[in-house]
Amino acid sequence: MSDLKPKFLQVYSVLKSELLNDPDFEFTHDSRQWIERMLDYNVPGGKLNRGLSVIDSYQLLKQGKELTDEEVFLACSLGWCIEWLQAYFLVLDDIMDDSHTRRGQPCWFRLPKVGMIAVNDGLILRNHVSRILKKHFKGKPYYVDLLDLFNEVEFQTAHGQMIDLITTLVGEKDLSKYSLPLHRRIVQYKTAYYSFYLPVACALLLFGEKLENHVSVKDVLIEMGTYFQVQDDYLDCFGDPEVIGKIGTDIEDFKCSWLVVKALELCNEDQKKILYENYGKEDPAYVAKVKELYKDLKLQDVYLEYESKSYEKITSSIEAHPSKEVQAVLKSFLAKIYKRHK
Amino acid sequence: MSDLKPKFLQVYSVLKSELLNDPDFEFTHDSRQWIERMLDYNVPGGKLNRGLSVIDSYQLLKQGKELTDEEVFLACSLGWCIEWLQAYFLVLDDIMDDSHTRRGQPCWFRLPKVGMIAVNDGLILRNHVSRILKKHFKGKPYYVDLLDLFNEVEFQTAHGQMIDLITTLVGEKDLSKYSLPLHRRIVQYKTAYYSFYLPVACALLLFGEKLENHVSVKDVLIEMGTYFQVQDDYLDCFGDPEVIGKIGTDIEDFKCSWLVVKALELCNEDQKKILYENYGKEDPAYVAKVKELYKDLKLQDVYLEYESKSYEKITSSIEAHPSKEVQAVLKSFLAKIYKRHK
Repeated sequence: MSDLKPKFLQVYSVLKSELLNDPDFEFTHDSRQWIERMLDYNVPGGKLNRGLSVIDSYQLLKQGKELTDEEVFLACSLGWCIEWLQAYFLVLDDIMDDSHTRRGQPCWFRLPKVGMIAVNDGLILRNHVSRILKKHFKGKPYYVDLLDLFNEVEFQTAHGQMIDLITTLVGEKDLSKYSLPLHRRIVQYKTAYYSFYLPVACALLLFGEKLENHVSVKDVLIEMGTYFQVQDDYLDCFGDPEVIGKIGTDIEDFKCSWLVVKALELCNEDQKKILYENYGKEDPAYVAKVKELYKDLKLQDVYLEYESKSYEKITSSIEAHPSKEVQAVLKSFLAKIYKRHK
Repeated sequence: MSDLKPKFLQVYSVLKSELLNDPDFEFTHDSRQWIERMLDYNVPGGKLNRGLSVIDSYQLLKQGKELTDEEVFLACSLGWCIEWLQAYFLVLDDIMDDSHTRRGQPCWFRLPKVGMIAVNDGLILRNHVSRILKKHFKGKPYYVDLLDLFNEVEFQTAHGQMIDLITTLVGEKDLSKYSLPLHRRIVQYKTAYYSFYLPVACALLLFGEKLENHVSVKDVLIEMGTYFQVQDDYLDCFGDPEVIGKIGTDIEDFKCSWLVVKALELCNEDQKKILYENYGKEDPAYVAKVKELYKDLKLQDVYLEYESKSYEKITSSIEAHPSKEVQAVLKSFLAKIYKRHK
């Protein structure tokens, strides 16, 4: 996998340069420079897992047969479309969440020259996806399926973000709104579709498959995405900050985390009172109370139990799939996330 | 034209109800209610000219032949897609411009419960366009052309907004950046594509035409859109507030208006100094100085001259078009805007 990263990064430069010279817009010197800076700041700085997994998955579908240069380029381009889509979500999410840092640097909208122009930059990032698809895929038999796919996934993600926003932000903080079904809904729509389903769906389309024949693949990947986010919620509280690279603040931020919904499910009336009184407050003393309660409820064990159950369920769904190649794709995804610590 | 408005409004209710019951998302009660309120607040409250002109244009292409119910529904749906697209732009533009009111009510993001959730609501409006297109046009031979068209027009508009933002907002106010070519670029990309070209392009696709055979139609409509925006700039300063329904503030807001770029082109060194010292300031005394200068430069006459030149040019382009039906569509557009006072 990692051997493809230099190639992948090279494709970024090609796509960027095409976008900066798009014949459908008359750039000024300033606007071209703006876009270049905005792209370099927001697009390539992540772990690139989502993008790289398009080419990994495609490779597995081809059963290790050597890919042509064109195939590599197209798979990398689709990978970058996902990274661009993610950059679009992150730039705008940071504005909505009033965040300060992202990937170890100030959020784009925090830069003094940028401010609310970041909203439009977000739209431009989304539009770049359409430009890349049009330039490199128009005329392919699956072009319209790609457009529909990206539209569908964006639709799901924006709706996931919406339930997250209206439960977390609107009105006063109210734990009674939080529940496992709500948590599942937010996670599946906001994260799982674009992070797990989208890369594999891109690889399948490139491979000539019709997505309507792969509904079960979608279901498994959404399940994996959910499991991934539960890990994330767990690591936010119980992970090693040195390893995960940040200090979690889900408790302070009143997040609808898997831990708090599990705690609400398992607690008695006295413990519930503790949660209501301490969740979502800045002061470390309150945060410590919540963490203590999580320990009393043995949430670490509950999590380990969830993890192995989830792993079993996902594995047996994968093994029920008729195609060995598709199984290989799904197993490779699962292997990357199972028992991760960061 | 106006006889179709009740029908058009009826289609809004149908589309809204479909979106609120979209099977690809599990709505909660709260999220469904949120979307409904957001749509009613932002989508149908404008003049609906852009949306209605799809059906008007289609009618003219059909040479007055009676339309089937399906044709009417499809043309209205495309019209609503444009209104939805515009709502998406306006909700986000108001955030970027820090505006207070829109269509006689507070901007959506100004509502206390909404705030920055409006960013995501903007995205949802854009996504609704894709959902409407998919539900009602997937399977039509021109489905992919519709997707490409909306993507292209959105791309142009976002880029127009970008040059507007980076020239008006970034750095200190600097009149030396303003020029006729810059004004033309902002206007064409930010307004003309989606307001003038898009409705006719939708009607042409519905009528079975290929857009690549209608490049000259695009050029004429972009020209008309430019003329329309110059009128807007003119009326902002010289129009009757009673008639146009608002008090213009382009001078105070340091806007890259046609009037200021024309003034910069025509003024001598002393007058230029006056402009530099007075443009873009709140105080009415400064504003009055600028207006006085506009009068000294006889900008009202310059405008009348521009208006008739522009009309002639557009008319002769229209008459060069081989199809009488397309000519009728373009002439009907022009008639709606020529010598308007509001």
